[in-house]
Amino acid sequence: MVGAGQLARMTHQAAIGLGLSLRVLADRSTDSAALALADVVVADYRDLDDLLDFAAGCDVLTFDHEHVPAEHLRALVDKGVVVRPGPEALLYAQDKVAMRSRLAELGLPVPRWGRIDEPGDVADFAAETGWPVVVKAVTGGYDGRGVWLVEGLGAAERLMTAAGSTALYIEERVAVRRELAAVVARRPSGEVAAWPVVETVQQDGICAEVLAPAPGPAAELDEEARRLAVAIAAELDVVGVLAVELFETADGLVVNELAMRPHNSGHWTIEGARTSQFEQHLRAVLDWPLGKTTRTAPAVAMANVLGGTDPGLAGCLPAVLGSDPGVRVHLYGKEVRPGRKIGHVTVLGDDPHDVRRRAQRAAAALAGPA
Amino acid sequence: MVGAGQLARMTHQAAIGLGLSLRVLADRSTDSAALALADVVVADYRDLDDLLDFAAGCDVLTFDHEHVPAEHLRALVDKGVVVRPGPEALLYAQDKVAMRSRLAELGLPVPRWGRIDEPGDVADFAAETGWPVVVKAVTGGYDGRGVWLVEGLGAAERLMTAAGSTALYIEERVAVRRELAAVVARRPSGEVAAWPVVETVQQDGICAEVLAPAPGPAAELDEEARRLAVAIAAELDVVGVLAVELFETADGLVVNELAMRPHNSGHWTIEGARTSQFEQHLRAVLDWPLGKTTRTAPAVAMANVLGGTDPGLAGCLPAVLGSDPGVRVHLYGKEVRPGRKIGHVTVLGDDPHDVRRRAQRAAAALAGPA
Repeated sequence: MVGAGQLARMTHQAAIGLGLSLRVLADRSTDSAALALADVVVADYRDLDDLLDFAAGCDVLTFDHEHVPAEHLRALVDKGVVVRPGPEALLYAQDKVAMRSRLAELGLPVPRWGRIDEPGDVADFAAETGWPVVVKAVTGGYDGRGVWLVEGLGAAERLMTAAGSTALYIEERVAVRRELAAVVARRPSGEVAAWPVVETVQQDGICAEVLAPAPGPAAELDEEARRLAVAIAAELDVVGVLAVELFETADGLVVNELAMRPHNSGHWTIEGARTSQFEQHLRAVLDWPLGKTTRTAPAVAMANVLGGTDPGLAGCLPAVLGSDPGVRVHLYGKEVRPGRKIGHVTVLGDDPHDVRRRAQRAAAALAGPA
Repeated sequence: MVGAGQLARMTHQAAIGLGLSLRVLADRSTDSAALALADVVVADYRDLDDLLDFAAGCDVLTFDHEHVPAEHLRALVDKGVVVRPGPEALLYAQDKVAMRSRLAELGLPVPRWGRIDEPGDVADFAAETGWPVVVKAVTGGYDGRGVWLVEGLGAAERLMTAAGSTALYIEERVAVRRELAAVVARRPSGEVAAWPVVETVQQDGICAEVLAPAPGPAAELDEEARRLAVAIAAELDVVGVLAVELFETADGLVVNELAMRPHNSGHWTIEGARTSQFEQHLRAVLDWPLGKTTRTAPAVAMANVLGGTDPGLAGCLPAVLGSDPGVRVHLYGKEVRPGRKIGHVTVLGDDPHDVRRRAQRAAAALAGPA
């Protein structure tokens, strides 16, 4: 697995059960996953030779992030490395213009969008949709980074100057009722398994909470979201976990982002589903049969723990465990920095309001003072 | 954690979630847990200097087996190492004569037993209980090793000659209806949490299956078993997980063996209980609040995977996963040897017969030809 963040760390927990040896390519020996497993290679994922050395002896190469350059992915495949998901699929997780074009071609619902070459393009787009508009980086954005709400032409000009060589594109501002995520896993042989569709609650562009199942949607909405994700997985030939972030609008669902790896919106599956997204990702990239995705409780709530100003996070863990013996804690071993995702908590139960409240409370207590 | 077998391996999975760094003392770098974690020390647990070096920098020292010599445990405590469970408690997991004496003193139900100095002691004992009798090694037995059914004086004489310097003692042969296990965890501060009592199904002295909850016992039996385990934990000042193996007889429960560490009869808790025995052991030895022990499904079955004659176990894993998408597999990364515990499977569901049958089938398929 290229990357040694918390996704690799939690994938390792699943790999242990399956008797698999996970090797990670880490930026630093102190990366989240590097602290927890035996086979760590500290190297540069932007360097093809490093990637080739790393992949030697691995059955399959997979990813905890989508930042490996596309030309390196193709070179790895040419050298005989089994890369899953493959470069043709990963392109659509790396390049948002490619993703928007392809989904539109497939007739799938996306926001109105356009390319930007000069500030005038923003003005032309806004003339049709009205201000404000959303300007996004074509590559590399995440957790609210690489997304700007632009109120007028002056702001667009300033943004483009500041962006320098960063490629940008434009989208309409969607009137979002709420955000959902449909997470599925797909094998090369075509088998697909979908988890129940969840609601994701964002704060400042970062996922704060995930509620499973998405509270109170019409059954048709859940069905439609799953169908969309399954169609995208098949059409783009995704292998492994695919997370489809969705906007629910008055007119139905619109695809926001794609991620082709285990995803924050699937962390609840560790305890909340019969098979976690981490185990399923491993099974999928190995082309093994997929596991059951049914929920283990009527209501599951996941809340991210974001770093506060107190670097000594661990000190409050016993108090949090003591105040709610049912809370499930996942800490990532990361240095605490304000706003950084350093862990998550999950609560299972019968009542959606109760599990949500408890997860919020535990996450806030773990984060400490903001 | 001293020892790097599958118990340490599964404890590591739990440690990752809690953001803890587990260090293991391994016999070999290929030990089950040593394959899966970063902080591995290959050293000799029978050597006090090795133990002291290993413990330096650890908050708490705990165990995946009970083979560390008692005098070393006391020396570690004298040097300021926090040893949990402590030497005074561990004595009763290491020395079965000490355990039998102490439990009898406490008025807890144990089989009739006696010391052996010469073969005549066996004959005297059998004169009261009748043949056959059970002769056991005082220390070091497990998985059916160190236990002999002795039919008469001649057999007792031959056994004592063969045993050489191995200390032996004698027990009546109990008319066992079935075997149960009560697993609890206890903090130094006294808090105790008990999982539901399970039935353990033995084959050739090795645990083959665990059924949770124990099928169809009177509620009083479950209550009595838990009460026994809680009393033993408190009286012996156990810290961490305590597994009490019990015989159910026509006259009630009798204590068979004690283990003061995560135990095979608690593997089902990984998916089958809100808090697994591995996480609970860590919380207990750190004196952190304990987690909920409630079941996550009406019926849970665990079956051990014992090595067969085929060393290439991993090859059949995809087929096993494919034939039952609900089965949860845990492989230990151990070299396959006939009869060796190399993994286990767990199945959760509504019907005890169904989950048991599915667990048996998956375990048999993973084991391959006997």
